[in-house]
Amino acid sequence: MTIPDFGYQRLGTSGRARRGRVTTAHGTFETPAFMPIGTQATVKTLDSKEVEGTGAEIILGNTYHLYLRPGHELIERLGGLHRFMSWNRPILTDSGGYQVFSLARLNKIEEEGVTFQSHLDGSRHHLDPELSMQIQIALGSDIIMALDTMSPYPANEERAREDLERTTRWARRCRDVWLKHGHPGTALFGIVQGGVHDALRLQSAEELIELDLPGYAIGGLSVGEPMEECFRVLDGVTPALPEDKPRYLMGVGRPEDLLDAVDRGVDMFDCVLPTRNARKGSVFTSRGKLVIRNRPYAEDTGPIDPDCDCPVCTTYSRAYLRHLFSTREILGLKLASLHSVSYYQRLMRDVRKAIEEDRWDAFYKETKQRLGLGWDDGR
Amino acid sequence: MTIPDFGYQRLGTSGRARRGRVTTAHGTFETPAFMPIGTQATVKTLDSKEVEGTGAEIILGNTYHLYLRPGHELIERLGGLHRFMSWNRPILTDSGGYQVFSLARLNKIEEEGVTFQSHLDGSRHHLDPELSMQIQIALGSDIIMALDTMSPYPANEERAREDLERTTRWARRCRDVWLKHGHPGTALFGIVQGGVHDALRLQSAEELIELDLPGYAIGGLSVGEPMEECFRVLDGVTPALPEDKPRYLMGVGRPEDLLDAVDRGVDMFDCVLPTRNARKGSVFTSRGKLVIRNRPYAEDTGPIDPDCDCPVCTTYSRAYLRHLFSTREILGLKLASLHSVSYYQRLMRDVRKAIEEDRWDAFYKETKQRLGLGWDDGR
Repeated sequence: MTIPDFGYQRLGTSGRARRGRVTTAHGTFETPAFMPIGTQATVKTLDSKEVEGTGAEIILGNTYHLYLRPGHELIERLGGLHRFMSWNRPILTDSGGYQVFSLARLNKIEEEGVTFQSHLDGSRHHLDPELSMQIQIALGSDIIMALDTMSPYPANEERAREDLERTTRWARRCRDVWLKHGHPGTALFGIVQGGVHDALRLQSAEELIELDLPGYAIGGLSVGEPMEECFRVLDGVTPALPEDKPRYLMGVGRPEDLLDAVDRGVDMFDCVLPTRNARKGSVFTSRGKLVIRNRPYAEDTGPIDPDCDCPVCTTYSRAYLRHLFSTREILGLKLASLHSVSYYQRLMRDVRKAIEEDRWDAFYKETKQRLGLGWDDGR
Repeated sequence: MTIPDFGYQRLGTSGRARRGRVTTAHGTFETPAFMPIGTQATVKTLDSKEVEGTGAEIILGNTYHLYLRPGHELIERLGGLHRFMSWNRPILTDSGGYQVFSLARLNKIEEEGVTFQSHLDGSRHHLDPELSMQIQIALGSDIIMALDTMSPYPANEERAREDLERTTRWARRCRDVWLKHGHPGTALFGIVQGGVHDALRLQSAEELIELDLPGYAIGGLSVGEPMEECFRVLDGVTPALPEDKPRYLMGVGRPEDLLDAVDRGVDMFDCVLPTRNARKGSVFTSRGKLVIRNRPYAEDTGPIDPDCDCPVCTTYSRAYLRHLFSTREILGLKLASLHSVSYYQRLMRDVRKAIEEDRWDAFYKETKQRLGLGWDDGR
């Protein structure tokens, strides 16, 4: 299926790592790519120019949150999510399913759809594949995700099969709506389920590939299983995915996890870690995590990360950041977030360059080793 | 007294309004000037580049807060407040007295100084004129304020006289420390007290003028008295202040109050209103206050203020701001603050231009009239 406003171009490989470019109705983004999360039409604490300044080329919006507040119909009347939040590059929205299962009070899953109560006010809502598509299309997303049902960890084979087969049936219903109302201009991704059961993952991939969707995500991972299990599943399933379409590993993860997933041929990522941890005073650096609110940094005149050229590291000291967290100043949340989002984007730039220059394996080893060094701050 | 690193140049007048320029060790600022408040080494929610982008040329830091956290000695070891918060333009610090009287639990005022308990942890501290100078000099402020004792409103003549005479005696002690340790490089301002008693205000001004300080502030106003009383006091006291030195009205105020004070020859202002109100969802505009978190703005695609060219008004809609406040997103606090600080700075630029072009009276009337218009939003 040719989608005028969407395409994946594989620019090169190094080892199993892929270097690519995705074209959408709002421009291109380079892969491997990390998408900062803009849950409620903002990457928390950052304005759209700051997000752009980090080098992020695509962000993720949350369907569940935007459906509840301010409502997809309101955003559509105001000209769509891009205009609403003043972000003119690609946007991917999730299906809303993950939040219904994790955040809302779930009432029941039926073949038709799910019923849930809002985490905000307990109001009752119904979400099904058709509505998920309508919401995401109304928001004006460039990439929309099919509604799926994921298996918890651990889930036995029966439960995992049930979830994956429902996910396939729902993906067909999503595709029908998308072809009618969202196509062209919007690209629908299917989500591979199957828990940690390799055969089920392959079954899910095969069933979704039959639908010939523009891209494929791997869902239901990073839900509590050991990371080795996650990567074992990836080892099994990524080779089964089409080479000419982007592969998106949902909800992963730490910098070292991104490296391990790129090493297995994944192209796209999202995760709350850089922003959520930053707001708790923990930032990511080239040598691993640094808890900036800790006392040893009270008189540290150096930047968060001497190897970082972000606006925070070139302007402010660890001592200043530590002071902002000690005094609960809102600016601390912003500066820590800006740094960590910048760090993730720089990591992905370095990842892409290493693949381009066909030195992936060396880069992978060196970077993982450096991430384990930590900071010699006497703790 | 000539201070190499400090001076006030009167560039012109229009009516009673003065257009001037103040030179400090960290460069000049144009007057009339409004100083955003950077209580804890940050203008709340804004980074230093954002503050600079609003056009602010000088900010105010709070001695009381910085003394408690992170401590003036720590900031001195790290190279001073300018470096700590990455603000390379002038900084004025208050004496700490106002917060001791308003925020801390005051234990007693004696001739020697004041004893108080921290609002943070109840720890006992002592502040006197000498320590206030030492703290402000350690912070590296360009303009430091003498420690004063202000009279509450209403205060009878006896209480007001007692406060003003103590303020004069403390100003002499401040001057001794400043001449020894802070001069040159730092400019000490005295604070005129005397409640709402005109004769006492004149007595206070005369006593302080004898000390030949680089600048004079009018304190103890905007503490609950009707604004007409405030302006009546200004009418009486500003003509008694030296024409060749800057005049700073402390803690005032709303945009219309700034106009009324400029109209009485005041050069410098500070106030928490633009930042504090912004964090509550109320912003300042050319037509007066606008409560952006209110429902009527939910679908308003226009900017906060169509007459504003700030980064918020040129990028985001009222609907987006309203959404951010509805969902308690931190970005809302930042965008509202950035707009309101920008608005105050633009107002002061317009004020200065009107004085330069000798059309102050017309500008004053037009601007006050427009501030009363409000927004036709059906409420």
